Amino acid sequence: MRVLILGVDGYIGWALAQRLASKGHYVFGADNLYTRKRVREVGSDSVLPIPSIGRRLQSFKEFYGKDLKFFRGNVADPKFLYQVFERVNPDVVYHLAEQRSAPYSMIGLKQANETMVTNLVSTINLVYAAKDTNPDVQIIKLGTMGEYGTPNIDITEGFLEVEFRGRKDVLPFPRNAGSWYHWTKVHDSNNLMFANRLWKLKITDVMQGVVYGTATKEIEKSHLYTRFDIDEVWGTALNRFAAQAVAGLPITPYGKGNQKRGFLSLEDSISCLTIALEKPPKDGEYRVLNQFDQYYSVNYLAEAVSKVYHELTGNTPEIMNVENPRVEAEDHYYNPDHKKLYDLGYRPSGELKKDIKKIIEDLLQYKEKCRDLKKVIMPKTVWKNSSGI
Amino acid sequence: MRVLILGVDGYIGWALAQRLASKGHYVFGADNLYTRKRVREVGSDSVLPIPSIGRRLQSFKEFYGKDLKFFRGNVADPKFLYQVFERVNPDVVYHLAEQRSAPYSMIGLKQANETMVTNLVSTINLVYAAKDTNPDVQIIKLGTMGEYGTPNIDITEGFLEVEFRGRKDVLPFPRNAGSWYHWTKVHDSNNLMFANRLWKLKITDVMQGVVYGTATKEIEKSHLYTRFDIDEVWGTALNRFAAQAVAGLPITPYGKGNQKRGFLSLEDSISCLTIALEKPPKDGEYRVLNQFDQYYSVNYLAEAVSKVYHELTGNTPEIMNVENPRVEAEDHYYNPDHKKLYDLGYRPSGELKKDIKKIIEDLLQYKEKCRDLKKVIMPKTVWKNSSGI
Repeated sequence: MRVLILGVDGYIGWALAQRLASKGHYVFGADNLYTRKRVREVGSDSVLPIPSIGRRLQSFKEFYGKDLKFFRGNVADPKFLYQVFERVNPDVVYHLAEQRSAPYSMIGLKQANETMVTNLVSTINLVYAAKDTNPDVQIIKLGTMGEYGTPNIDITEGFLEVEFRGRKDVLPFPRNAGSWYHWTKVHDSNNLMFANRLWKLKITDVMQGVVYGTATKEIEKSHLYTRFDIDEVWGTALNRFAAQAVAGLPITPYGKGNQKRGFLSLEDSISCLTIALEKPPKDGEYRVLNQFDQYYSVNYLAEAVSKVYHELTGNTPEIMNVENPRVEAEDHYYNPDHKKLYDLGYRPSGELKKDIKKIIEDLLQYKEKCRDLKKVIMPKTVWKNSSGI
Repeated sequence: MRVLILGVDGYIGWALAQRLASKGHYVFGADNLYTRKRVREVGSDSVLPIPSIGRRLQSFKEFYGKDLKFFRGNVADPKFLYQVFERVNPDVVYHLAEQRSAPYSMIGLKQANETMVTNLVSTINLVYAAKDTNPDVQIIKLGTMGEYGTPNIDITEGFLEVEFRGRKDVLPFPRNAGSWYHWTKVHDSNNLMFANRLWKLKITDVMQGVVYGTATKEIEKSHLYTRFDIDEVWGTALNRFAAQAVAGLPITPYGKGNQKRGFLSLEDSISCLTIALEKPPKDGEYRVLNQFDQYYSVNYLAEAVSKVYHELTGNTPEIMNVENPRVEAEDHYYNPDHKKLYDLGYRPSGELKKDIKKIIEDLLQYKEKCRDLKKVIMPKTVWKNSSGI
């Protein structure tokens, strides 16, 4: 199939491109290298070294024996996106090209608005480009489990059967996100649902858990590493914990650390995203998939990292619960469904310990770099202090 | 009190300014005259003649004996809004400064994105300006009953008690809007709810029905008319039906015309918005008020207009159900709560016939203008045909 990955230079995008190429698809990619720039701006860098996009594409061709045709540009620019669609005529398009950091969106008003505009406009552009140039394309869009927040009821996959005052309906599951970034994903989901109602576009909206890990099956062979961020703005929980251990810092769950979230490895994320392509929705269907392996409390993960690090090195990193920079419930019920991907064939790997070991081993090769980034690992961006103009 | 009206030059804003001035408040206003410009662009104009903003403000001062201090600028520009907040230091701010036309948002991609950006950014700017310059200000924000769509259960006011698999929670009422414009109001509501969680801002989020009418108590005395739009992009159901009758056109419910919506007169809208000011939420509260008088089917309103027009003139306008340009259910359950404003003192005027009579009488004085606008009254903007680049 002809597959277009918007955001191909990112953490997920680069790993996904390799999976799809190894499965024999024709892979096309677009990116404006936004994440590289924004990560540099906070004084950070991918810990696993990633070459320039030009060299990346060159190595990709050498290893996979075929071109990844690349378009440099901004998906929030409608002209650019229409041109890419017309050139590629994709069977499937993955939209991974949004501003993807919750802390970044909470730095201040400028970043809040930038996140709103970048993310919403890119998705609006996408549905228009699809309906105008290729209405049969399958859109696979990355949302987040964070859209749901932590309600006191089970979380279903996208829609909820509600009984109220003796009447029934199936309604969108009420969302309740915890950062401007997470809210943009809610807004996108709503806009996608509406685009589907307007034009019967075929859409898979992925509510993804927190992704961790350095590798996939392909990356272990190709050594074409994807980026790996560990700073407080661009890194996420488990990856950062591993980096804290390697850098000789305490591991820092936020607040009480009883917050529970769905997690999955990079390998599982790529598997699920590939299943979405191989098992598309029906024509005209908008479907929502909750995509994670298991849910864990943040404390549980901190302890798991500490333990594995000890087994590998003999040293035991301290666990230090720090003041929570976010606005979130620290003790809550959490029980999200994730049956649909299972029914489509996804088998959660559920090998947390092995995954953590692999991350730490990879990071230990870049121990100095982890230490160099010490000053950007510890939390600084405080939700309530988000700055104005 | 010091009251700032963002969007003071608009249909609601100009009428609200007069009510607040007559109640002794200090009224400040901001506007970028966006609606005037956009209405001209579709070849239309307010049927009731409105003078330039300069002359408006002059007449306001002459009639009410005090200045309405005016700031010309765009609320989507954070610097402008912060400056206005610092100059005014308002006790209450009304946000009526959004792109407010559903058809406009559906013309094409450009307008869809413009509506997303204008509306979301203006509301984000507002909550930041409030928390940075005056966190005690009451924010009264105009949303729409259209945020809820037409679910098969009763619509509550903002939040819904859900029981599911033996557990309970109170969650945001699931929204399901019917145009990009309506979705921006959903996104705004979500963003406001989150801003309240972040900074305990005091917010009234008004889910307003469709407003009709030419006048309020003050306007009947001052003759400082507010704008009155009748074209297919900027006019709304009942107002347009009256204009169609006066222009000698058929009255055109969309589709079957069984769509039900909450409606209220301009007088009632202004009364409700004033109640929101006089009976503020508790400190740190985000409250949602469903603001309408009664709900009617579109056919019922078409017949009511036809009947009243006949009583006034002896002529009976034809009712012609036209193909529905929108994507919406035409037969549906509809039973929204609207108890909170009643509990705060709002008494729905419920004088539909009298209100329609007044509209038609006012329009008959501008019969020629209604006829001149014939070509822009009939529906043209078709949801499914929303154009790309």
